[in-house]
Amino acid sequence: MSGEANLAGAWLDEVPWNEQGLIPVVTQEFTTGRVLTLAWMNREALAETAKSGEAVYWSRSRKKLWRKGEESGYTQKVRELRLDCDADAILLKVDQVGGIACHTGRESCFFRKLENGRWLTTDPVLKDPADIYKK
Amino acid sequence: MSGEANLAGAWLDEVPWNEQGLIPVVTQEFTTGRVLTLAWMNREALAETAKSGEAVYWSRSRKKLWRKGEESGYTQKVRELRLDCDADAILLKVDQVGGIACHTGRESCFFRKLENGRWLTTDPVLKDPADIYKK
Repeated sequence: MSGEANLAGAWLDEVPWNEQGLIPVVTQEFTTGRVLTLAWMNREALAETAKSGEAVYWSRSRKKLWRKGEESGYTQKVRELRLDCDADAILLKVDQVGGIACHTGRESCFFRKLENGRWLTTDPVLKDPADIYKK
Repeated sequence: MSGEANLAGAWLDEVPWNEQGLIPVVTQEFTTGRVLTLAWMNREALAETAKSGEAVYWSRSRKKLWRKGEESGYTQKVRELRLDCDADAILLKVDQVGGIACHTGRESCFFRKLENGRWLTTDPVLKDPADIYKK
């Protein structure tokens, strides 16, 4: 994905950034199709993601660029970047290193399912977060 | 999915509605895993989705409930509703009636892919929108 390194790309101008300069990003495991996370990018995060080939988001809570896996090592290798028609969203298909995208130690952040009027946790913890973030 | 019909459900209180009372919803085809759309729900839309078993969103442009397929006939039958850990999003798995989720007549709204610094349209139009919305 060369040639997408700088912030002046016309392809970046085509993204309908919201009033905060952000766009929601659905991240999906390329091979299994599992939806892993919903996160946000600003222009710089998207440019960096395309340039580096690894997912870089904008942390709305920490108000800074967030290189996915910078602490856990569970980076996301970019396979595809897709833009939707007008609902203002990006779809990022990745290879999830380590098979864990969620800070709870699960594969996906969507580990709760509505069952009989309750959000039921259906997915196992693959690794204790204390062991993921121990450094 | 009985018992989720009213707006007073505790499961609805667990959803981290944003300052506009909305939550982003990733909708995915249950069988193929294709991500179809990124849309939004308010409390009423989510309650209605669970009650009716068909996707109901909140249209931010029209500022009203939007029963997916109400004009096109391409409704979405609910298979699973999932909530994420803390990034404030819902994952809705559906059977997409007619195989078309996008108003452009394509299966998915994510029909453009980044290739060599351009958003390239990769997906075919399955049906002319003029034939979808002619009533």
